[in-house]
Amino acid sequence: MGNLTGACMFGQSGGPTSVINSSAAGVIQEALKQECITAVYGAAHGIKGVLDENFYDMSKEDTYELDLLKTTPSSELGSVRYKLKSADEDETDYKRLLEVFEKYNIRYFFYNGGNDSMDTCNKVSKYMQKVGYECRVMGVPKTIDNDLWGTDHCPGYGSAAKYIATSTMEVYKDARVYDTGMITVLEIMGRNAGWLTAAAALASYKGCGPDLIYLPELPFSMEKFLDETNKIYKEQGKVIIAVSEGCKDEQGRYIAEMGANLSTDSFGHAQLGGAASILANIAKEKIASKVRGIEFSLLQRCAAHVASQTDVNEAYLAGQMAVKYAVEGKTDYMVAFERAEGTEYKCNIKLINLTDVANTEKKIPREWINKEGNGLTEDFIKYALPLIQGESCAPIEDGLPRFSKLKKVLAKK
Amino acid sequence: MGNLTGACMFGQSGGPTSVINSSAAGVIQEALKQECITAVYGAAHGIKGVLDENFYDMSKEDTYELDLLKTTPSSELGSVRYKLKSADEDETDYKRLLEVFEKYNIRYFFYNGGNDSMDTCNKVSKYMQKVGYECRVMGVPKTIDNDLWGTDHCPGYGSAAKYIATSTMEVYKDARVYDTGMITVLEIMGRNAGWLTAAAALASYKGCGPDLIYLPELPFSMEKFLDETNKIYKEQGKVIIAVSEGCKDEQGRYIAEMGANLSTDSFGHAQLGGAASILANIAKEKIASKVRGIEFSLLQRCAAHVASQTDVNEAYLAGQMAVKYAVEGKTDYMVAFERAEGTEYKCNIKLINLTDVANTEKKIPREWINKEGNGLTEDFIKYALPLIQGESCAPIEDGLPRFSKLKKVLAKK
Repeated sequence: MGNLTGACMFGQSGGPTSVINSSAAGVIQEALKQECITAVYGAAHGIKGVLDENFYDMSKEDTYELDLLKTTPSSELGSVRYKLKSADEDETDYKRLLEVFEKYNIRYFFYNGGNDSMDTCNKVSKYMQKVGYECRVMGVPKTIDNDLWGTDHCPGYGSAAKYIATSTMEVYKDARVYDTGMITVLEIMGRNAGWLTAAAALASYKGCGPDLIYLPELPFSMEKFLDETNKIYKEQGKVIIAVSEGCKDEQGRYIAEMGANLSTDSFGHAQLGGAASILANIAKEKIASKVRGIEFSLLQRCAAHVASQTDVNEAYLAGQMAVKYAVEGKTDYMVAFERAEGTEYKCNIKLINLTDVANTEKKIPREWINKEGNGLTEDFIKYALPLIQGESCAPIEDGLPRFSKLKKVLAKK
Repeated sequence: MGNLTGACMFGQSGGPTSVINSSAAGVIQEALKQECITAVYGAAHGIKGVLDENFYDMSKEDTYELDLLKTTPSSELGSVRYKLKSADEDETDYKRLLEVFEKYNIRYFFYNGGNDSMDTCNKVSKYMQKVGYECRVMGVPKTIDNDLWGTDHCPGYGSAAKYIATSTMEVYKDARVYDTGMITVLEIMGRNAGWLTAAAALASYKGCGPDLIYLPELPFSMEKFLDETNKIYKEQGKVIIAVSEGCKDEQGRYIAEMGANLSTDSFGHAQLGGAASILANIAKEKIASKVRGIEFSLLQRCAAHVASQTDVNEAYLAGQMAVKYAVEGKTDYMVAFERAEGTEYKCNIKLINLTDVANTEKKIPREWINKEGNGLTEDFIKYALPLIQGESCAPIEDGLPRFSKLKKVLAKK
């Protein structure tokens, strides 16, 4: 395919991460360099900003502030969770998108997100093809969940994993100071795939991690949890358990739902709360006097102060390469990572069809989970360790991070 | 007083912090240098280790590992929460301490902790004076709560404050990505004093902090909380609230207790959980559809990866100076910090009587809290900002912190 001249639209979608803005920097800075790209727009709140004609002219931003995006957590342009209906079912949104694309001569569309966002990207791509509107559409991967199909890993995961492993090591130290028994339950994100929870195994690899790790890939059994915890408690007096918020039993019930049946407080009320507090409370009732449930909550996806430099660089590269490939004529792909053979970590960029990646979830292979189903194997460590290498954080002013401050000048209508 | 030759005993007590081990390094490394100190013992689990004759010979440790204590969170020798009875009431423990002190010729006693620990230190000091056993006793301050009387601030606070301010800035960013309403409640430690919760104001000072801050220094009113939150929600759609776990209403009830009366879930059960989840649930019921409660939990006291270098240095200095002063002949004091006049931050070491500091709590002065009782004044920012300056973290190996590994060779009995 030849040269295509026109404007470019970039959007951020789905849950934010520590490094999604680094991909934004990659797309925006590369697009601003390209002669065939006549304008660079950043959509406010992803696809919604396109539909609402609410987007920023990125050429108005200072270079320094764009650079700072690399170390600014969260989705600086605003994100959205908006699922496009299938065009066969309802064409309204698509017609509107086409109208906006035509009005601004948008010929490049870059969409940065996880599974749902790649679905959006795919639908936009297919619709523009169908109606014969020439436009190069590229997905830029992002998700702390690391569950996108077809790529070795996803930008966002390495930094979340680094935060989880670091914090778990620190909690491990903290939970060991008294010579009394203590059970600590760490609740980690990941509704269907256990990649984030598995990252706690990196702390164990360094000698300061959980004794037990429960992933949503395997059915969760309260009895097994209590048996295994009790055994370690009897032996060592201290137990640390990492559990995924997405763990479900054979019947498909989440831990919070199981808790409601298994345990009641002293007033006879069912226990409410997240998996960590439920499990901590049940362990308190059945095993130990001292327990603590800790939820890493949002912190695990926005802790840019302890981001992985590898992740920040790769997130940037993914954005940059999406633009380069599109300018070269590629369309309808997501940028992905392919790990090179050899002992030293190296990832190459590859392209995968949007159709293949949209809505397909990648889970942890069974052989990377130990036989007992309560820990990870060395293969997982080998996989994950390179992803958390290098320390990234924002420039510090007054002892605190200096985040990017964009002007967000709205594009002229 | 003249030269006193003998062994030294050091103990860690109370809740751990990111920098209590830096004070340990200060005490141990300085004591190992002193000719008049014939042996340096580290008590396992504070005063309990002394009573049980369970302590380590610190001269057996590698210098490198002792250096690493400066960046290793938690109480590496083990801590304890053990309250000595008054000697008038029960002399048993004191007699045993004297026996151990005599057996090992312990002539220097350094105890590192907060209010309760200074009480222990004071009691040991006074008993040894009473029975005429010559021993120099010095308290080394430590507490993330920053509530020790007589010192400008406490080692441990600056690092916890830096973690809280940094994480709050990141959560602020995260909570703003969608164009839908959102109320986020951050729960911060501090049972009686609001210093830690107030640290969230540093994030507001940098433009990314809470709209409302509720401290335990003032009575908490659920009605006021709802009114103030609702007002900001109506104006801006996003509200971030920092609340101390220690907030109580006029009747002295904690938020969790108030929650039980004020709100029930859809099953008619009372809400259980911490202040953040209670307030988030009540806000959900009364104001907004989207809420999130986040508890910083243990993370705020062990996040050495984002410690304040000022804090690490001062913690070390406090330990070091305790030894120097004791060798010079001082006893029955706690090492404290006095801020020098002038625009540039500088703290000098001073000594305060153990009797004065034991069990006295220092709270935030009313004039540092705004008139509305929901935020901090500039005076607080001026006070706290210098304490979080400089970035400290452990050396990194494999992308993760390398903590100190002590041999912990038990002293010969």
